[in-house]
Formats: sequence, structure tokens, C-alpha cells
Amino acid sequence: MKQIITINRTFGSGGREVGKRLADELNIKHLDKELINSIYKKTNIDKQILKNEDENVDSDLYNYSLSRSFATYQMPMSDHIQLETSKIIKEQASKNSCVIVGRCADYILRNENPFKVYIYSSDDNSRIERCFNKIPQDRETKTPEAMLKEIKKIDKKRSKYYSYYTGGDKDLMNNYNLCIDTSKISIKNAVKLIIEALKLI
Amino acid sequence: MKQIITINRTFGSGGREVGKRLADELNIKHLDKELINSIYKKTNIDKQILKNEDENVDSDLYNYSLSRSFATYQMPMSDHIQLETSKIIKEQASKNSCVIVGRCADYILRNENPFKVYIYSSDDNSRIERCFNKIPQDRETKTPEAMLKEIKKIDKKRSKYYSYYTGGDKDLMNNYNLCIDTSKISIKNAVKLIIEALKLI
Repeated sequence: MKQIITINRTFGSGGREVGKRLADELNIKHLDKELINSIYKKTNIDKQILKNEDENVDSDLYNYSLSRSFATYQMPMSDHIQLETSKIIKEQASKNSCVIVGRCADYILRNENPFKVYIYSSDDNSRIERCFNKIPQDRETKTPEAMLKEIKKIDKKRSKYYSYYTGGDKDLMNNYNLCIDTSKISIKNAVKLIIEALKLI
Repeated sequence: MKQIITINRTFGSGGREVGKRLADELNIKHLDKELINSIYKKTNIDKQILKNEDENVDSDLYNYSLSRSFATYQMPMSDHIQLETSKIIKEQASKNSCVIVGRCADYILRNENPFKVYIYSSDDNSRIERCFNKIPQDRETKTPEAMLKEIKKIDKKRSKYYSYYTGGDKDLMNNYNLCIDTSKISIKNAVKLIIEALKLI
């Protein structure tokens, strides 16, 4: 049976890692970097811009000059990218079992009845620590307070992106089927718990 | 090892049943009716009043005349009941493994590091159906819309109660370690999932 699992997360909670490990354990597709590559192939938008624009809807970017190759779209860069992202997610999910982290996938695939997971961390210190462990040099240059400020800024940016493209609230429990606190349950065990839940639905 | 599990829930999500079944499966105490009985023994407050006041902080009730037996307290009935509830919860949890549903137990026992669960239902229809199944005659006298209105009223009352005694938000994901949607995962399976999570923490 085809399984589609969408994961949303707060920054620093390990949601992306949960997604990757879950796809590995289930031996199914993990749409993440592959998404960026597919959009690149379809649109020729610079990969760095794609990365910067990923899950972004910052109004500063609405004034980007559109390059000749997609001048006909006449839409903000972020809308263009989201449209392509949406097409690829739908196309992939129609064919394969997959895990997709972020990118409004839960909304895009709402008619496919995905299992919707939210990964968060109730303890800000564990988010700060996870970020410092990921980029160790940040520990030397940033205070924990500054790190937390960055974390919250990214959370806000992602929530804004979600709200813009779905009209919904990314961080509302009611939008999910299972929400796991990775400051209490490790990433490895969160994956085990999701696999257990998939057997029970 | 002592295990303390607190469960909060939205009305009609089956949270109380999850608590009862979980305590049965783990063969540990379930503080629910027992709480009412203990408060009754300690205070002599009429059992019906105790039931009505359970998880309530409705301001109409602040003007209750205090009976002679506890006139010295000089506090609203709901505060008096919450104080006694809090004492009993602390006393029980200091001695035994237990499951406690509602009653701000997660806050009262915050220093005991409980495993905090939230049970909700992302589909209002499943809440309406659960309520109708519990009191079948309601199906004859109430429309689903009227039932939902009642459900939301009780949710609001409980959230107000939680906020009054803890200063926090009962329905905020960050206050919990595991949140389970019983419109996707059955009550029986939610219990299995919590037991699995307890093995993983």
C-alpha cells in the first residue's frame, strides 16, 4: 500500500533528520534535495536562489526581475517556485510512497490522505544545542540567546510561508495526526514511534 | 521505575477513555473518580457540586455561599476544590505510578517530570459521533451542529480553567511530549502508541 507521510517541524527540532531517517527505514522516497534538483531542471533557476527561496515568501523578493527564460510567468519568484514544487510533489506522490518535509506538502497532498506528522521541541535549549552541534563554529561566535533569536526568526518565516500558500496555521496541532516532542523523545525514537503509528492506522 | 502520565484532551476526543485504558494496560492507578471521592471525604462538599465544579472556573460560581464546614477558607468554591485536588494529586503521584486526565495535573506535577500527552481529534465529525455514541438519546434531540456547539463550549470552559490555575495555554502543543489525533488513530491504538513511547523515553 502506498504511504505518504508529510512532516512539518519547528527549526532546530530535528524534523528534517526525522524525515530522512524515516524514509530510509521505510525504504521509500525522501523528497528534499531531489525537489530542488527537479525544480532546477524544470526552470533553470539558479540553485542558490532556489535554496534561499525554499519555504520563503519574503516580500522583499517580490520585486526580483524575472529573467528572460521565464518572463512569461509574470509572477513573483517565490510563487513560481512554489507552483513548480507543488507540481513535483503531486507528481511524485501520485506514483510513489514518500516522505516530504515542509513545503506545504500536507496541504498540497490533502486529497491523498497523507499521515501528517509535526516534530517540535518543547525545550528551547535542546533546539539551541542541536543548531550548535550542526554548525559547531556558531558556538564560538553566537550566544545561545542570539542562536534562539535566529531559530525563532526562521520559525516565523516558515509559518508565514505556510500561511501564505495554504491560508492555514502551520503550528496548529489540529492540522496533524501525530506531534512528537524531540526534547523528550530522541530523533531515532521519534522515527520508531512514527513507524509504529503507521502500523496502527 | 515510577511512571507518571498526565493527559489533557479536547472534549469528544476520547481522552478520558485513553487514560482509563492506559492505566489498565500498565496496571497503575488512574486518578479520576477516585479524586472526586477523596475530595468528598476531605471536604464534605456535595458530590454533585464536585462533579459540576470539576475543571470549572466559571465566575458565576464565585458567589456561592460557603457552607459552615469550610467558612474559614474564604475563597471561591472552585479555588477550594482545585486546592484539594492539587494536594491529592501531589500526594498520590509522590507514592505511585499513575495516569491523571485533566485537572491541570501536568502543571501540578511539573517538578515530577511527567510524560505529558494530549489527545485531540482533528475531525469535528468524529467528536460529534463519539458524543452521540456515549449518550444515544442526544442523537434524537440534538442536531450535529448543536452537539458541536456544546463540545466547543466545554472545550472553552476547560481551557479557561487551565489558564486560570496555571497561567498557561492548555491547547498549546509545546506543553506536551506527545499529541495524538484520535480521528486518525483509534483510542485502542493511541493507548498502544503511548505505551510504545514510554518504552522509548
